[in-house]
Amino acid sequence: MLSVEEAEALLDKVSFLDLGFAKPDLEREERTGFPEVIYCSGKPDKYLAEIFKNLYETNGEVLGTRATLEQYEVVKAVLEDAQYDEVSGIIKIEKPGKKRIGKIAICSAGTADIPVAEEAALTAEFFGANVVRHYDIGVSGLSRVLSKIDDIRSANCVVAIAGMEGALASVLGGLVSVPVIAVPTSVGYGANFNGVAPLLSMINSCANGVAVVNIDNGYGAGYMAVQINRLAE
Amino acid sequence: MLSVEEAEALLDKVSFLDLGFAKPDLEREERTGFPEVIYCSGKPDKYLAEIFKNLYETNGEVLGTRATLEQYEVVKAVLEDAQYDEVSGIIKIEKPGKKRIGKIAICSAGTADIPVAEEAALTAEFFGANVVRHYDIGVSGLSRVLSKIDDIRSANCVVAIAGMEGALASVLGGLVSVPVIAVPTSVGYGANFNGVAPLLSMINSCANGVAVVNIDNGYGAGYMAVQINRLAE
Amino acid sequence: MLSVEEAEALLDKVSFLDLGFAKPDLEREERTGFPEVIYCSGKPDKYLAEIFKNLYETNGEVLGTRATLEQYEVVKAVLEDAQYDEVSGIIKIEKPGKKRIGKIAICSAGTADIPVAEEAALTAEFFGANVVRHYDIGVSGLSRVLSKIDDIRSANCVVAIAGMEGALASVLGGLVSVPVIAVPTSVGYGANFNGVAPLLSMINSCANGVAVVNIDNGYGAGYMAVQINRLAE
Amino acid sequence: MLSVEEAEALLDKVSFLDLGFAKPDLEREERTGFPEVIYCSGKPDKYLAEIFKNLYETNGEVLGTRATLEQYEVVKAVLEDAQYDEVSGIIKIEKPGKKRIGKIAICSAGTADIPVAEEAALTAEFFGANVVRHYDIGVSGLSRVLSKIDDIRSANCVVAIAGMEGALASVLGGLVSVPVIAVPTSVGYGANFNGVAPLLSMINSCANGVAVVNIDNGYGAGYMAVQINRLAE
Amino acid sequence: MLSVEEAEALLDKVSFLDLGFAKPDLEREERTGFPEVIYCSGKPDKYLAEIFKNLYETNGEVLGTRATLEQYEVVKAVLEDAQYDEVSGIIKIEKPGKKRIGKIAICSAGTADIPVAEEAALTAEFFGANVVRHYDIGVSGLSRVLSKIDDIRSANCVVAIAGMEGALASVLGGLVSVPVIAVPTSVGYGANFNGVAPLLSMINSCANGVAVVNIDNGYGAGYMAVQINRLAE
Amino acid sequence: MLSVEEAEALLDKVSFLDLGFAKPDLEREERTGFPEVIYCSGKPDKYLAEIFKNLYETNGEVLGTRATLEQYEVVKAVLEDAQYDEVSGIIKIEKPGKKRIGKIAICSAGTADIPVAEEAALTAEFFGANVVRHYDIGVSGLSRVLSKIDDIRSANCVVAIAGMEGALASVLGGLVSVPVIAVPTSVGYGANFNGVAPLLSMINSCANGVAVVNIDNGYGAGYMAVQINRLAE
Amino acid sequence: MLSVEEAEALLDKVSFLDLGFAKPDLEREERTGFPEVIYCSGKPDKYLAEIFKNLYETNGEVLGTRATLEQYEVVKAVLEDAQYDEVSGIIKIEKPGKKRIGKIAICSAGTADIPVAEEAALTAEFFGANVVRHYDIGVSGLSRVLSKIDDIRSANCVVAIAGMEGALASVLGGLVSVPVIAVPTSVGYGANFNGVAPLLSMINSCANGVAVVNIDNGYGAGYMAVQINRLAE
Amino acid sequence: MLSVEEAEALLDKVSFLDLGFAKPDLEREERTGFPEVIYCSGKPDKYLAEIFKNLYETNGEVLGTRATLEQYEVVKAVLEDAQYDEVSGIIKIEKPGKKRIGKIAICSAGTADIPVAEEAALTAEFFGANVVRHYDIGVSGLSRVLSKIDDIRSANCVVAIAGMEGALASVLGGLVSVPVIAVPTSVGYGANFNGVAPLLSMINSCANGVAVVNIDNGYGAGYMAVQINRLAE
Repeated sequence: MLSVEEAEALLDKVSFLDLGFAKPDLEREERTGFPEVIYCSGKPDKYLAEIFKNLYETNGEVLGTRATLEQYEVVKAVLEDAQYDEVSGIIKIEKPGKKRIGKIAICSAGTADIPVAEEAALTAEFFGANVVRHYDIGVSGLSRVLSKIDDIRSANCVVAIAGMEGALASVLGGLVSVPVIAVPTSVGYGANFNGVAPLLSMINSCANGVAVVNIDNGYGAGYMAVQINRLAE
Repeated sequence: MLSVEEAEALLDKVSFLDLGFAKPDLEREERTGFPEVIYCSGKPDKYLAEIFKNLYETNGEVLGTRATLEQYEVVKAVLEDAQYDEVSGIIKIEKPGKKRIGKIAICSAGTADIPVAEEAALTAEFFGANVVRHYDIGVSGLSRVLSKIDDIRSANCVVAIAGMEGALASVLGGLVSVPVIAVPTSVGYGANFNGVAPLLSMINSCANGVAVVNIDNGYGAGYMAVQINRLAE
Repeated sequence: MLSVEEAEALLDKVSFLDLGFAKPDLEREERTGFPEVIYCSGKPDKYLAEIFKNLYETNGEVLGTRATLEQYEVVKAVLEDAQYDEVSGIIKIEKPGKKRIGKIAICSAGTADIPVAEEAALTAEFFGANVVRHYDIGVSGLSRVLSKIDDIRSANCVVAIAGMEGALASVLGGLVSVPVIAVPTSVGYGANFNGVAPLLSMINSCANGVAVVNIDNGYGAGYMAVQINRLAE
Repeated sequence: MLSVEEAEALLDKVSFLDLGFAKPDLEREERTGFPEVIYCSGKPDKYLAEIFKNLYETNGEVLGTRATLEQYEVVKAVLEDAQYDEVSGIIKIEKPGKKRIGKIAICSAGTADIPVAEEAALTAEFFGANVVRHYDIGVSGLSRVLSKIDDIRSANCVVAIAGMEGALASVLGGLVSVPVIAVPTSVGYGANFNGVAPLLSMINSCANGVAVVNIDNGYGAGYMAVQINRLAE
Repeated sequence: MLSVEEAEALLDKVSFLDLGFAKPDLEREERTGFPEVIYCSGKPDKYLAEIFKNLYETNGEVLGTRATLEQYEVVKAVLEDAQYDEVSGIIKIEKPGKKRIGKIAICSAGTADIPVAEEAALTAEFFGANVVRHYDIGVSGLSRVLSKIDDIRSANCVVAIAGMEGALASVLGGLVSVPVIAVPTSVGYGANFNGVAPLLSMINSCANGVAVVNIDNGYGAGYMAVQINRLAE
Repeated sequence: MLSVEEAEALLDKVSFLDLGFAKPDLEREERTGFPEVIYCSGKPDKYLAEIFKNLYETNGEVLGTRATLEQYEVVKAVLEDAQYDEVSGIIKIEKPGKKRIGKIAICSAGTADIPVAEEAALTAEFFGANVVRHYDIGVSGLSRVLSKIDDIRSANCVVAIAGMEGALASVLGGLVSVPVIAVPTSVGYGANFNGVAPLLSMINSCANGVAVVNIDNGYGAGYMAVQINRLAE
Repeated sequence: MLSVEEAEALLDKVSFLDLGFAKPDLEREERTGFPEVIYCSGKPDKYLAEIFKNLYETNGEVLGTRATLEQYEVVKAVLEDAQYDEVSGIIKIEKPGKKRIGKIAICSAGTADIPVAEEAALTAEFFGANVVRHYDIGVSGLSRVLSKIDDIRSANCVVAIAGMEGALASVLGGLVSVPVIAVPTSVGYGANFNGVAPLLSMINSCANGVAVVNIDNGYGAGYMAVQINRLAE
Repeated sequence: MLSVEEAEALLDKVSFLDLGFAKPDLEREERTGFPEVIYCSGKPDKYLAEIFKNLYETNGEVLGTRATLEQYEVVKAVLEDAQYDEVSGIIKIEKPGKKRIGKIAICSAGTADIPVAEEAALTAEFFGANVVRHYDIGVSGLSRVLSKIDDIRSANCVVAIAGMEGALASVLGGLVSVPVIAVPTSVGYGANFNGVAPLLSMINSCANGVAVVNIDNGYGAGYMAVQINRLAE
């Protein structure tokens, strides 16, 4: 049985603000090194504004993903310094003078994958990592990925983002020695099934060192890439 | 409305032997340039022997796919010249001195895909095509496929055979200018779903000039490769 | 290990323009005999115009698929000679006086499959093939396909386009001796699952010489038909 | 609200024998014109023998489907007149001198579909219908089905049995004016998914007058064909 | 091989009008007893009007299913007598004084299934059958179906229409002796998967005499019910 | 066979109003202790108003779920006391002074699950249960659920509502001794497949005492929780 | 934040034996009122014997599910009083003189569902509930379920077990006022998909008060039925 | 275009041994820091022995996964120092005196997941990482995981292995700050679908820092954990 001391040690690192409709995790940064991030999609306006405000006041910066332009207006009304990136749908206020460390390579197979890639890239930068972007380097023209491979190999972690058949993850996995975080995207049509085809492709990768996050989950890939990048520095 | 002459022209090229339990197509070679082939899997012994015998007597040669060793014994009892290839499960009697034309490249991603690859290769050779084999050249080690690419490019048609995530088809599709017939295999485990993952991958290929046949259907790929090879010669 | 010469021979045939957000393949025509084609669906306007312009300037002609009328207006603003086909959603500028060779038969099961069929047909014509069209010849009225079969049989390659249960591919596969490229369409409802039913039907075709491309992928079928048509001529 | 008389009228036609582990419907023949049939697959031996015996004693004849040879031995031990058909797995004792009426056409696409076809045919004959069998008439060789079509058209009901892509149902549906009961079979491999491909194909048939029963359900198709055949006579 | 006479006999009953974009079957009524019906969903306006006009001129009446109000306006512009049923989306002109025969029972589980039920009912009436309607008699309140069962039992054929879990088909199948044509509907949410749940339920019905058509395919059920009703009269 | 008395006893408790298009169950409250509830989604306006009116007149109160604001206006026009909850989409008129008994704990994993949770909570309250709400206590921050566990444990029944991966049901199942009714929600994206992921997760729960209702079915969970709550009091 | 006291209160009720390969929950009975039960399927012999022994020594009785006859021999070697039920695969040693309370009705649609039903029934009895069994009362013969309905209605909880299309759950749900726990079984073939069809059917039940456990999970249904039965007594 | 030097730099690090049937990657260790590992499942005996021998001779050690006892005998015949672990199916010869660095925590939800967990653990140890094992700590008894959490938190990387509903990954993801590699296992039954349920659960994890490998892919998780562990040291 756990002793009282152990239980205390375990639980006193975890806290949250009880808003009733939401319980934002105010001490997450202290606990994990990452402040809580807001997934904006579908959140009602009044909740959204309040959560942004609370997290900003707690952490001095705040990041929200999958926001519409309308949601940005709502946030901007309470946090006027909030900035919006239309490509990725990210809202943020970032502490000035943040130092970035290490290197993460964010690679996309096609132009249409860029919104997901930018969600990953901006997330990684917000959490303090240096990022290099290599977009539209899908495997149907191998010279594109081969011409960038030296830069990709020098990163601590590679994020491979692809829709269609998602083969980029396997090809990158075979060319680098660091972990590859694969992100299937919903780019494609027909038997792509909104990203199922690249998801299965990536989960079955014949290359070693490839793990997969949810379809279009650029944020999740950026987050784990930062975890690895920090461990490496 | 079709005239009698047109109907006649249409239908008199089609004939079959009515065995009741089966209706083998005796004039298929005349009509399509390919004699009928026997899919052995699951055929009862007595039907199998009779069909082999009838087709051999009609065409002077015969090819059967997906045969077990036991089925080979059954066939050998009525056709003592029948030969068996254990890797692919093919039974055949081939006319001597057959001249082969053109060139088909049969490529497999892994060693475990070889049974399907050999089904394709032996089918293509039986139907009179020259075949080059490049096995275990999957994308996790790109140097393998790149080192063979000149030979592959010189073929009239490429057959790309892969299980796991099936990325070989896309990579080959981006490197050659001739048609690529992709064969997903059931090699893999877990979320491979017995070949569904490479099937979806290949159907969604970002490369042009890739079409797909059924999972493990080496015969079907070999057949179409021969059709293309004949047109090219 | 590859020698330097081999690597050079391999790689110097592959080049691309690095726009950052996109890397169009400028030497693809030289390498494969086909210029790069633009898949317009979902491409942001500013990227689209730039890519069209670059490819047109490189190749002297350009083809885009799956374009909306709005996208056509965007392209027309930078390339005033661009033409638009509303049925298939194709934008193109084609070199004048292009000579067409061989013969490809494009067959559709129903009237609702015509947009996909026209994508295939216009693609094949753009790449220099003669095309015959046979539309609405689905298997529920066999006399329709039988009355056209002589013309279909004289082609170097047949494209069979069908939604619903997709049986046209099997019936055509049994009637012709050349390759049949099958295109399942999303035409249908209920347990059609947006084209999954005809996709499975076509992949499981009992006829020989049938290979399948993605649901609604008229472009892909047209492309491969041209590859085969060129080999045959 | 139902009156007592109505409830009585409703319910007094329904009765069963309560064996605890099973409740065979002893008055089904009186109610529906069909005696209860035993689905043998997976039934423990002791239950099986008792159910066979009870139904035989009630009805003077008995039919069991999907029986193994071992189960036949069990039944034979209590009902020595029981007969077994190895192809379909049917056990039966049939009243002598049964008069058959009308005509049902049972058609199969391939030789491997015959077990399902015979389950349908023997069921229909047991229930008093005349049956004509047309096996191995799949659509890859249209002349086979066309050469038998006059006989098929003269039936009161057509049963279309096919694995692979199941296209026979659509082709028959377009050629006859009576109802077509389609039976997908698990014959095939790969993306056939044990009969899912022909099931979807048949459910999406572009022909009118086609309805579908479960994969390999020859019994169910034979049963409904008899219902229709009786209505027609 | 088919003789010329046989081929002629076979084929001279099949004809169509070749409009290029469509090939309506003008002699279908003579051949099958049913004139061709127009599936309106997704047909471009100009095709739709022309097909309606041609079929009306040939047959003296015309039926179209799955039409929007906008499509009705298009048809009405060329055929001013056309009538529209908003519940089912049917457009029709019906010959006056048509005699109806027999009896078909059309049953729906819920109120939301009525559009599909009316498609079946109006189709059956157009093709000359008497129809009785029993709506909202789903199995969660058995007294509803039981109170109507005598009327249902007196029909030549029963159409069972249900979404949700589709249990109505099994319950009706156990209560009547005539064929039950089951129509799964897309009514439901969540794990209903737009009709997949009732489709699977109906295909697996434990009752005899149940066959299934596509999700929401009221037309197909009405058509086959008429075939059976005609055979019975 | 059932006696007349038994049939009468069975059936005279079941009655309904036959509106033709609907057959509302007027005596359900007497029979089951719960009045019939109206599922508003997709019901045409004129049916909706009539059903609300009939049930209100019969029961003196009425509850409708999944209603839009527009539907509320329709209902309000005939029942001016009707109230609307925008979060859950519930319309109701509730008898004044209703006494609530027992205790049900309604728990949601995230803020986005609140609409489903409120549907459950308002349903349970309407049917006379006391409800405690614990929202946004998903397993990624265990301290949230642990800090509320004493209150949750004191309920007669727990409703666990979660989208994403649905792990809350298993964690709660391991912490309480009363039944857990799990409700998967469609909250999530990508491989969530609109609630399939949490549905499978909950059905496979490693904890005992967990049963599952349909995706987003807050009403169904609230209903069964009330059944259990009543049994416990 | 949780106080130390709260954490202690929370955690000191949870304990387990750390065997390394397993961590049986020794205080579960005290915490939840149910001792831990052993899921035997796939457990290696040496682990199995040790876990059985530890739990028996802790609780004075022990229950294991899904055991083979071979596993029973292994357990019997260390616990000679262990008993085995071949139908359900349950191994148990039960405390003598256990008093049973309340009433649970366990209903199965077919004879083949009995193994799952007995797993539920023996589990419920082991945990101290009275059980009535009603087997083979599927909906294709409604008189069977109707003739037993009074006994079923008098239970505190109903377990509805069915394969095929699983309609029994909806029919029972409409006839009783207590909770129905539905158990889909893998009984069936073809498009039953090893229990997916009845699972979907039950999850989509049109009746209120139905919740679902995993396919073939008789144990889980019995467990929750006991929870409800205890609350009711 | 790539220069010759760049191509050379790129390609001269990649080499392989061309055995025809296989092309083992002999310089992989130099390139990636990991020697090639042999996936034994399904490899024919003669290939297996040769590949083991070649890789052992090149690297001085060798690791093979998913091997049967029979395959071990084959390998032992050529490499008599080969050792076999029956739980995980791993064959290996390991260099003596290998130094292990860092720390990886391998956690399993149940006892039945141990074979996959040991595949991960032995892989990580072979590649030079320190490993701590925490087995049978699934979420249905939270005290088990909480009592081990301090040890788990001190690792550089966590591997979370679970079948059933796979909730362990989310719970661990919420408790640690390092990357969690989630491995769904095929442990479970019914709607687990051989690991699909935990795969979807893990891909949809509400916790940050979780990425997923294929079902039962302990090797892949161990491999990536080592990559991260090395970066951290």
